[in-house]
Amino acid sequence: MDEKDTDRLEAFSDGVFAVAITLLVLDIRISTVDPSGKILDNLGLWSALLGQRSTLFAFVTSFLTVGIMWLNHHRVFKHVERTDTGLLLLNLLLLFLIVFVPVPTALLGGSLGEPYEQAAAVLYSGTFFLIACSFNLLWRYASYHNRLIGKDIDQRTVAAISRQYSFGPLFYFTAFALAWISAPASTILNFMFALFFALPGPPLRRLPQ
Amino acid sequence: MDEKDTDRLEAFSDGVFAVAITLLVLDIRISTVDPSGKILDNLGLWSALLGQRSTLFAFVTSFLTVGIMWLNHHRVFKHVERTDTGLLLLNLLLLFLIVFVPVPTALLGGSLGEPYEQAAAVLYSGTFFLIACSFNLLWRYASYHNRLIGKDIDQRTVAAISRQYSFGPLFYFTAFALAWISAPASTILNFMFALFFALPGPPLRRLPQ
Amino acid sequence: MDEKDTDRLEAFSDGVFAVAITLLVLDIRISTVDPSGKILDNLGLWSALLGQRSTLFAFVTSFLTVGIMWLNHHRVFKHVERTDTGLLLLNLLLLFLIVFVPVPTALLGGSLGEPYEQAAAVLYSGTFFLIACSFNLLWRYASYHNRLIGKDIDQRTVAAISRQYSFGPLFYFTAFALAWISAPASTILNFMFALFFALPGPPLRRLPQ
Amino acid sequence: MDEKDTDRLEAFSDGVFAVAITLLVLDIRISTVDPSGKILDNLGLWSALLGQRSTLFAFVTSFLTVGIMWLNHHRVFKHVERTDTGLLLLNLLLLFLIVFVPVPTALLGGSLGEPYEQAAAVLYSGTFFLIACSFNLLWRYASYHNRLIGKDIDQRTVAAISRQYSFGPLFYFTAFALAWISAPASTILNFMFALFFALPGPPLRRLPQ
Repeated sequence: MDEKDTDRLEAFSDGVFAVAITLLVLDIRISTVDPSGKILDNLGLWSALLGQRSTLFAFVTSFLTVGIMWLNHHRVFKHVERTDTGLLLLNLLLLFLIVFVPVPTALLGGSLGEPYEQAAAVLYSGTFFLIACSFNLLWRYASYHNRLIGKDIDQRTVAAISRQYSFGPLFYFTAFALAWISAPASTILNFMFALFFALPGPPLRRLPQ
Repeated sequence: MDEKDTDRLEAFSDGVFAVAITLLVLDIRISTVDPSGKILDNLGLWSALLGQRSTLFAFVTSFLTVGIMWLNHHRVFKHVERTDTGLLLLNLLLLFLIVFVPVPTALLGGSLGEPYEQAAAVLYSGTFFLIACSFNLLWRYASYHNRLIGKDIDQRTVAAISRQYSFGPLFYFTAFALAWISAPASTILNFMFALFFALPGPPLRRLPQ
Repeated sequence: MDEKDTDRLEAFSDGVFAVAITLLVLDIRISTVDPSGKILDNLGLWSALLGQRSTLFAFVTSFLTVGIMWLNHHRVFKHVERTDTGLLLLNLLLLFLIVFVPVPTALLGGSLGEPYEQAAAVLYSGTFFLIACSFNLLWRYASYHNRLIGKDIDQRTVAAISRQYSFGPLFYFTAFALAWISAPASTILNFMFALFFALPGPPLRRLPQ
Repeated sequence: MDEKDTDRLEAFSDGVFAVAITLLVLDIRISTVDPSGKILDNLGLWSALLGQRSTLFAFVTSFLTVGIMWLNHHRVFKHVERTDTGLLLLNLLLLFLIVFVPVPTALLGGSLGEPYEQAAAVLYSGTFFLIACSFNLLWRYASYHNRLIGKDIDQRTVAAISRQYSFGPLFYFTAFALAWISAPASTILNFMFALFFALPGPPLRRLPQ
């Protein structure tokens, strides 16, 4: 029954991730399919697509970042073996922030070079800072005294994963602070962090039995 | 085969929950991404977001309430071990009401302070009253003489859960009645009830074998 | 590995069903949330909802019919134990028709009493006739000489299920023919058939071993 | 735990496929449901649907092609038994391209006979060329020295599957090249390739143990 618990939490989360990751394709679809007769030749189509570059950029970016978050959700729940109400609520908080990601991403995509790019970058990096905090909270709640993870998982492994996750809020807070100074620099930093969190974490070590 | 039955019911329900919980993010996305050149500076973006506060409030609220309903669905189906046509139809009824939740939530979000806030609060609390009834129906149908739940589950546990669930329609009927007098008071009561149902229920006790 | 096959087919189908069943809530949501200041008092909200009755009716109807189709998909795949390319393609055909259901349902919802109600009823009942054929095809393909169902399932059970399913195309063809004469009568007949297919089918009998 | 890994990758992919396959029905729904009083009689409805033929064609086509891609994803992951970060990232790349499919499909559906049909056909066949490459990459990464597939799978089977998949990029590159000369010919070729990839692949042979 314990295992069934995580199964259903993961299935529900996968559904929410699947919707969140595809949300921004709606923007491209609606806008390019309905060109109201403005496209006159082949070149016209290419330049129409080029005119949509900020929407395309937002779609690519949100797909990549939400995808990497799924990767990390997957990694965390490879360790978690049981659930309780606290974990379900913390997971809902995380999913809420992830479903919100397309909003600041679309805003950022349309803002670069605009007079409001700083506010958009602050909102964007602020969202990712909250997500990093939320991931940390979830992991620390589950792993505290091996509460919801395998009883036989080595405490040193737990500590190594905790250490790696604790970089998240630190990293994203830097990007958040930088956003107040330079929007492009903060955005680049955010992407570098996303790629960093795509890398595999420390291996899981189980106690000899 | 019995277990496979609940598995598929849960997978389908998870998919429907995942779509229902993300529906209202579409409203934020569409409206803020397409600002038609009205945002002139950083402050403009913040005030544009502030102008969307009722849409944001509706998204947060519907995410939270649908999330807590998923939690309760998850709890009920931890006990249910078999399915039959009656249960599948009662589950469809429940899912129908849950998919409808974003509609009254969005209406309520836009109505506070408006001259039609009372009607919106009546519709909102009425929907939640029906959902509470539907949850009760599902649980009573499944647990009646241990019809679809584990044969070894203690009747006192079943009675304790039934008692807790029977508060639902009572609670939400109070909020529904209050809506005719004060929309804000009814809304606040609804949120308190949602938080109450996020709390864990009585523990499952199985008969000694 | 055989069982894993059906598992994934069912998971993918559940996802498609979940999206199809929620599609028409988008119509209600978008239209009532954006009332462009036309609602002046509580009565105004109720009459605005009443003005949406055809959209609401379409949502309820498509939820119910797609839900009953999921029920039947679930029943068929309780018997199917293996998959092959033919089954996967027939399942795709069925899913295609089910995703299309919201289109004729929304058309029908808006057409009753309009001068084009006959054409809408023809399209609607035609779609359900094709779905009934598609369900038959799927079941006959899977059950032919116990191709993809349990080797130990009694041929009399298979024949009983086949007989029940073969009523589908017959029933819906009647509704389709009637649509050319009376749109309301055809629509009522369609709903009665949907309710008939919600009823449980003949029990599964396995050969003694 | 290895098997659980693929399970979750498949569940997440199924969710993304389910959303991608249903995306284009939104175009039909929105446009035909809102006929702004232009339909005056039964014939008017049929001609309104006929006027939507490019949207309907795009929906049918994208359903069919995404469906066949799901079929192939399903086939590849019947062999894959473990996951690692590389595989998860390659799977994300593949899903990204599949979610993008509705965009060029809708463009192509509206472009045939228009002065920009060549550009649309280039974009369409280019997308499928990238998808074929991505499928190859995924399979070669997983099967290299039996990295993530069953250790007991015969190297000749692996080679046979690799050979069949390697036709994909070749085929679709031909269609891509042809698109610069004739859009209709390239489109027909693309459909023939899709049907070819719906056919079952070489059987899986395991080493005797």
